[in-house]
Amino acid sequence: MNVVELSAIARFSPEKMQKVSILDTPRMFFDLYCLEPGQAQKPHRHDGSDKVYVVVEGRVRFTVDGEERDVEAGHAVVCPAGSDHGVTNPGPGRARLLVAMAPRPG
Amino acid sequence: MNVVELSAIARFSPEKMQKVSILDTPRMFFDLYCLEPGQAQKPHRHDGSDKVYVVVEGRVRFTVDGEERDVEAGHAVVCPAGSDHGVTNPGPGRARLLVAMAPRPG
Repeated sequence: MNVVELSAIARFSPEKMQKVSILDTPRMFFDLYCLEPGQAQKPHRHDGSDKVYVVVEGRVRFTVDGEERDVEAGHAVVCPAGSDHGVTNPGPGRARLLVAMAPRPG
Repeated sequence: MNVVELSAIARFSPEKMQKVSILDTPRMFFDLYCLEPGQAQKPHRHDGSDKVYVVVEGRVRFTVDGEERDVEAGHAVVCPAGSDHGVTNPGPGRARLLVAMAPRPG
């Protein structure tokens, strides 16, 4: 059985946000994103894929279709196909996010 | 922006396990499963869809391809397409699970 301890696979880098894969198939990817304060994934869009984020540590600043909001651990943010979405860790602590996207963009 | 507080949407029933939808498209469903002690989803399989569970509250007994394991909050369990998988809440507390599946079975 493939059981993954989320705190054990976390990996941070001073260079940039880290993406740790939990599942990766053409049907879906499921990642843990690890952001040091100040790190970001800039807004982008996928016209044919839905994405759901879940904040599991810290606080994350989301920008979705131009709206900005800070979201704490224990919340999900839903970004349907075609929405512009980006994330930033405003600090002061680290942030970890679960990210499911389907299908995986080609 | 569609922000969902996971503790606020939880819904339990003495009748059976509750599935609370966070996203539901043909590409993916993303649900919160809420299980009272003793409630279960019996083992089943999807030959064309991957599933990832994340335990967010309590402890869940997983059965995947005949292997049984109790998994605590903070862990993910990966069930690729074609695997037999089921969940039970062995108690004594409530259990909540995030569940991503892609694509949504027809």
